[in-house]
Amino acid sequence: MKQSLQEVSNTGSQLSRLALSHGKRTRLWRLLYGYGPRNGSLLVLPLDQGLEHGPTDFFPHPPAVDPSYQFELAAAGGFSAIALGIGLAEKYMAEYCGRVPLILKLNGKTNIASDAEATSPLFASVEDAVRLGADAVGYTMYVGSPRQHDEIRQFEKVRQDCERYGMPLVMWAYPRGSAVNARGGTNTLYAQDYAARVALEMGADIVKLHEPNDSVANVPAPYDKLQEDAAARCERVVRSAGRTMVLFSGGEKNDDDAAVLRKVEFYMRSGANGVMFGRNMWLRPFNQAVALVRSVHDIMAKYPR
Amino acid sequence: MKQSLQEVSNTGSQLSRLALSHGKRTRLWRLLYGYGPRNGSLLVLPLDQGLEHGPTDFFPHPPAVDPSYQFELAAAGGFSAIALGIGLAEKYMAEYCGRVPLILKLNGKTNIASDAEATSPLFASVEDAVRLGADAVGYTMYVGSPRQHDEIRQFEKVRQDCERYGMPLVMWAYPRGSAVNARGGTNTLYAQDYAARVALEMGADIVKLHEPNDSVANVPAPYDKLQEDAAARCERVVRSAGRTMVLFSGGEKNDDDAAVLRKVEFYMRSGANGVMFGRNMWLRPFNQAVALVRSVHDIMAKYPR
Amino acid sequence: MKQSLQEVSNTGSQLSRLALSHGKRTRLWRLLYGYGPRNGSLLVLPLDQGLEHGPTDFFPHPPAVDPSYQFELAAAGGFSAIALGIGLAEKYMAEYCGRVPLILKLNGKTNIASDAEATSPLFASVEDAVRLGADAVGYTMYVGSPRQHDEIRQFEKVRQDCERYGMPLVMWAYPRGSAVNARGGTNTLYAQDYAARVALEMGADIVKLHEPNDSVANVPAPYDKLQEDAAARCERVVRSAGRTMVLFSGGEKNDDDAAVLRKVEFYMRSGANGVMFGRNMWLRPFNQAVALVRSVHDIMAKYPR
Amino acid sequence: MKQSLQEVSNTGSQLSRLALSHGKRTRLWRLLYGYGPRNGSLLVLPLDQGLEHGPTDFFPHPPAVDPSYQFELAAAGGFSAIALGIGLAEKYMAEYCGRVPLILKLNGKTNIASDAEATSPLFASVEDAVRLGADAVGYTMYVGSPRQHDEIRQFEKVRQDCERYGMPLVMWAYPRGSAVNARGGTNTLYAQDYAARVALEMGADIVKLHEPNDSVANVPAPYDKLQEDAAARCERVVRSAGRTMVLFSGGEKNDDDAAVLRKVEFYMRSGANGVMFGRNMWLRPFNQAVALVRSVHDIMAKYPR
Amino acid sequence: MKQSLQEVSNTGSQLSRLALSHGKRTRLWRLLYGYGPRNGSLLVLPLDQGLEHGPTDFFPHPPAVDPSYQFELAAAGGFSAIALGIGLAEKYMAEYCGRVPLILKLNGKTNIASDAEATSPLFASVEDAVRLGADAVGYTMYVGSPRQHDEIRQFEKVRQDCERYGMPLVMWAYPRGSAVNARGGTNTLYAQDYAARVALEMGADIVKLHEPNDSVANVPAPYDKLQEDAAARCERVVRSAGRTMVLFSGGEKNDDDAAVLRKVEFYMRSGANGVMFGRNMWLRPFNQAVALVRSVHDIMAKYPR
Repeated sequence: MKQSLQEVSNTGSQLSRLALSHGKRTRLWRLLYGYGPRNGSLLVLPLDQGLEHGPTDFFPHPPAVDPSYQFELAAAGGFSAIALGIGLAEKYMAEYCGRVPLILKLNGKTNIASDAEATSPLFASVEDAVRLGADAVGYTMYVGSPRQHDEIRQFEKVRQDCERYGMPLVMWAYPRGSAVNARGGTNTLYAQDYAARVALEMGADIVKLHEPNDSVANVPAPYDKLQEDAAARCERVVRSAGRTMVLFSGGEKNDDDAAVLRKVEFYMRSGANGVMFGRNMWLRPFNQAVALVRSVHDIMAKYPR
Repeated sequence: MKQSLQEVSNTGSQLSRLALSHGKRTRLWRLLYGYGPRNGSLLVLPLDQGLEHGPTDFFPHPPAVDPSYQFELAAAGGFSAIALGIGLAEKYMAEYCGRVPLILKLNGKTNIASDAEATSPLFASVEDAVRLGADAVGYTMYVGSPRQHDEIRQFEKVRQDCERYGMPLVMWAYPRGSAVNARGGTNTLYAQDYAARVALEMGADIVKLHEPNDSVANVPAPYDKLQEDAAARCERVVRSAGRTMVLFSGGEKNDDDAAVLRKVEFYMRSGANGVMFGRNMWLRPFNQAVALVRSVHDIMAKYPR
Repeated sequence: MKQSLQEVSNTGSQLSRLALSHGKRTRLWRLLYGYGPRNGSLLVLPLDQGLEHGPTDFFPHPPAVDPSYQFELAAAGGFSAIALGIGLAEKYMAEYCGRVPLILKLNGKTNIASDAEATSPLFASVEDAVRLGADAVGYTMYVGSPRQHDEIRQFEKVRQDCERYGMPLVMWAYPRGSAVNARGGTNTLYAQDYAARVALEMGADIVKLHEPNDSVANVPAPYDKLQEDAAARCERVVRSAGRTMVLFSGGEKNDDDAAVLRKVEFYMRSGANGVMFGRNMWLRPFNQAVALVRSVHDIMAKYPR
Repeated sequence: MKQSLQEVSNTGSQLSRLALSHGKRTRLWRLLYGYGPRNGSLLVLPLDQGLEHGPTDFFPHPPAVDPSYQFELAAAGGFSAIALGIGLAEKYMAEYCGRVPLILKLNGKTNIASDAEATSPLFASVEDAVRLGADAVGYTMYVGSPRQHDEIRQFEKVRQDCERYGMPLVMWAYPRGSAVNARGGTNTLYAQDYAARVALEMGADIVKLHEPNDSVANVPAPYDKLQEDAAARCERVVRSAGRTMVLFSGGEKNDDDAAVLRKVEFYMRSGANGVMFGRNMWLRPFNQAVALVRSVHDIMAKYPR
Repeated sequence: MKQSLQEVSNTGSQLSRLALSHGKRTRLWRLLYGYGPRNGSLLVLPLDQGLEHGPTDFFPHPPAVDPSYQFELAAAGGFSAIALGIGLAEKYMAEYCGRVPLILKLNGKTNIASDAEATSPLFASVEDAVRLGADAVGYTMYVGSPRQHDEIRQFEKVRQDCERYGMPLVMWAYPRGSAVNARGGTNTLYAQDYAARVALEMGADIVKLHEPNDSVANVPAPYDKLQEDAAARCERVVRSAGRTMVLFSGGEKNDDDAAVLRKVEFYMRSGANGVMFGRNMWLRPFNQAVALVRSVHDIMAKYPR
């Protein structure tokens, strides 16, 4: 059951405070209030691991190698959106149109060559997203990579096209490359906090981050002296992202359903707008995954935005 | 004898499940049901070895250095298509128009300089393919090359042009470069399986792969522990390619006709859509080659798609 | 209270001597005579530190991580303009439109990767500035970087767009990179003097510089033999900038209000057109910061331009 | 005396078998049947040595430093065309228009910097060639250079413009760079044979090659085992070039007129379409050069194409 | 007093022999016959040293740091043109329009980073030159730099724009980079002679060169064996430049007026079209500089072109 526009203007406080074009407002509304938990939070199912990591990621649950599996799950489970690339969208989405919104992932790469100077090239365009009826585009930014100038220039083109077409922009803000490693690695609070701010200042509408860990080895000051617990760390990065909505990633698969649900609650409590869980969803047997999604909905229902 | 449109809609299940533009559907139909085995399988004759390897490849059978030889063979043998570059298409195809479809190979390079950072530059465009009446374009992607960002960005332009003109896109998905070598080489199951998935996620309609070998030296986990036989390996990569149709390459010349036929049957049984055999065809005396193609037809007739 | 056009033509001598397009003249007038001290001097509040240095810079005064803090301060304090990037402008400026002019910073980068070959990529365009109602754009030029050719080519595009749209151009002229370090570092008189001249010759309307220090270690002749006091050094770089107006940066935070005010007076006396102080403003408690700005106004009132 | 169109269709077998646009056909006809030997063979006078090698090449015959010398020689001797760059064409060709066709050389470079990663940048366009009334354009391709991707991408733009304007394309196919040197050098049969095929597959109408030598040191198999005489080597590369017409280069100056004539006859007998001799022509005293050209005409008259 | 068009056609032999567009002819006429010595020779005052060398160059005569100084001198002294960049042109030229022609220098760089792979990026366009009423553009080409491919490709765009707008093109042909140094350095006869020819073949209308020195250390044959005096060396490079007019640079400041005048006479006698003297002019006290220019006029009057 969809909400009326009136209800939206009541619940959609995070949209009403933003100066959005009609296109962006319409599409963001669909993601936040038209699908998924429908309360301003976001539950996104990503499927770009086949490209980013290779088919390896499907080995624990072989049926997942067929993209129909993830589409079925996204539709049956009531995800806010499915996030994937142009090849999968064009070849598999026809029968799911209208049942689950699409976040078209625009860039990507294999993990075969070194990540020391990582850069993620575009293989689809915002125009493709419009043509396919997508409600947002996804862009991976390797924050701090020695090739960040290429990354950023390419991003600029995408951002401008998003502006022109009223297309919301989700940034996968991933600290990456030799300089990040030299400063403690990709999942430190330092790196995730910086990534959150980059997404805000560069104009992402939504940012996907990883939960910051407590490692301080090689981390620059003053982060090396911070002694914040996990909740404070998450709240910090959410704060640094400002009015850019934060999604936390699920990371690798956790077999324990309860642990996954605790994670969701933990992220929502920190102020995040939602989660983007892939392997923790689609590496489960179908019915078990659907049941887990329902429980996630129950948690997210407590955190309207 | 061509099939009626009714017959096509019966046999062409692999096309009917895809959301194709009229142009792509028309051209794919010609390749799959209008020429060659006409049952949805594909038998392609490639001629890009002179550029990719030098005239060396013609030494075992000198008449093959004249491109007319391959055009004659493609027409006489009833190939689904001939795949070659702009120079050969423009200078030799005039008298074969309508007798054999053209897959215009858009990029290529010599093998003189090192392949450590391989990239394959465009030397023709999708517009050229339209102008020449081609039914598909071919694009070599060096999967995992340290220059994959260049490869992918260039591919993106081609893919978009294919979308605009309704031109099917065949990806030569070749693992290549120093990082691939460090992980076991180009023909391992790991590399071919990854290449298949890249083709799917990036939006190729058809992918040309090599038969994965059983080498596990230096191959990443979990591939290093897989103990699958040759059939299972081929089936795996076909599965990873999803709705992207797979063609297996013939590789170097095998003098034994029966062995070639066994290979074709083996690939078709694994779920492939067809084969792309060059040297195993055009390095044979003309009549012997035509006879071999007829036998290949007989095999492929058993595997409608 | 705004000045009449008549008053402008009396006070605006620095504009009247320049052959400016209507657009540039109008926008520069707003910055120089319509807001801030309104006497031809400039008091700019920058907020790009979150991107350039990471959220680290907000640690001394946590409320400053919320960009609304700086917008409130710019409006309440009567700054000539606030200078920030597209993400902050789009998500926070709606309620401040008309209350404080915008200098849209067009390029930027993180400080994670090495600065040895620093280059600052564009992440917004002059068109964005026009759309957002900005009165100038900001561009960081890493003077003397081994990648200066990329820097300069990118700048050229921005400069031409500024010309086309009548948009004033503020250059953050920052000596940077391995060659600058080998010649004594970024804040020497040699480096700042050169940066001032680069801004003039390349066509900046306003240049942001740092106060040149007295270090002569490794500095090229004849700068290594100059024995000028701090005032003479500032006057020299102002002279080298010619008709490009100079803003001096505040640098790191100084807790002593009086010291900040002495700095402002010192810079104005050297012939600068104004100051761009960030952390020295927004790392103070709000009311203290506003009070400090008022005192800055009093000083700048003595230096009409 | 020009030939009628009827005569052309009799003699011009090499044009009639090609599917050429009207523009290409018209311009090729002028080069092959309208000027020079007028029998389908080609005698081209190149003048790009001043750029490619420096004024050094003119030292043996100082009058040759004045480009008028070569224009006079081309007109008086009855060359099929003169091949040179935009600067020389624009400043010297006015008085020779109609007297000798122009092949506008589009790219070039000095030989000062290392050739290990040679690439030859464009300094004129096909549009320039059209504007100047040229009958073909020339393009240097450094076959096998580590930067071949740049070479080829740049070539692709030229080739497309040639297609659009109906402009014949002459490729200077020069094996060059560290990898070529490692495989035996630029003038081996291996290198020249590969270059011939590259020209054919990439779409050159005419290719300029060097006579392959008999060196097999470091040459890849099976070329290292070939024991072909000079004639067989030339015939081989002509064969590898297929329907792309071959011109052999004259190389360095040979003072012996008879030796030059033997070379021409030798090349024509091998199936080449003609020769491009520069220093062997314009380093001779004017009258001697004209007399030599007449003798070359007599030889070429025996080899209609 | 300007010359009539009739007088021009008498004196302007160097223009009448060239096939120039109306725009180029008009603008070259102004430079050669409308200003300065008005007899076909050229006396140009350059001011790009602040960017190319830093404010250092103004130290010997501090008033010269104010660009008005050079504009005043150019107008009062009767220079053929002043050559400088977009920033100086836009901010200082308004009051000198019509009094001295402008050569807009389009590219440039600082000398902070290494020149081993020198390249000079564009920071203004031919369109800017048109808009500012310039009579020519200036372009620095680092002849023989390992990045010459970038240099040349960028030049090609400028040359085409010059063609389109009828804008004369002055090339600062500067041998530069590691390979030039390895062959004896930038001011040898070898290097300057090559630079002169590059300017001619690439299509410059006017080339600025340095007087070739007599150093033969590391210089390639046959230059290492040449024993030509200074006059012969200058004449040689003028000859190599062909119909591209040669300006010799003044180089560093010479305090002796008579020596400067001897230099001018020497260059004119060698066949040069004129001189481009900067520091030898504007580092002198104003009246002394004006007096010197008058004497230069007297010399140049003896060398009509």
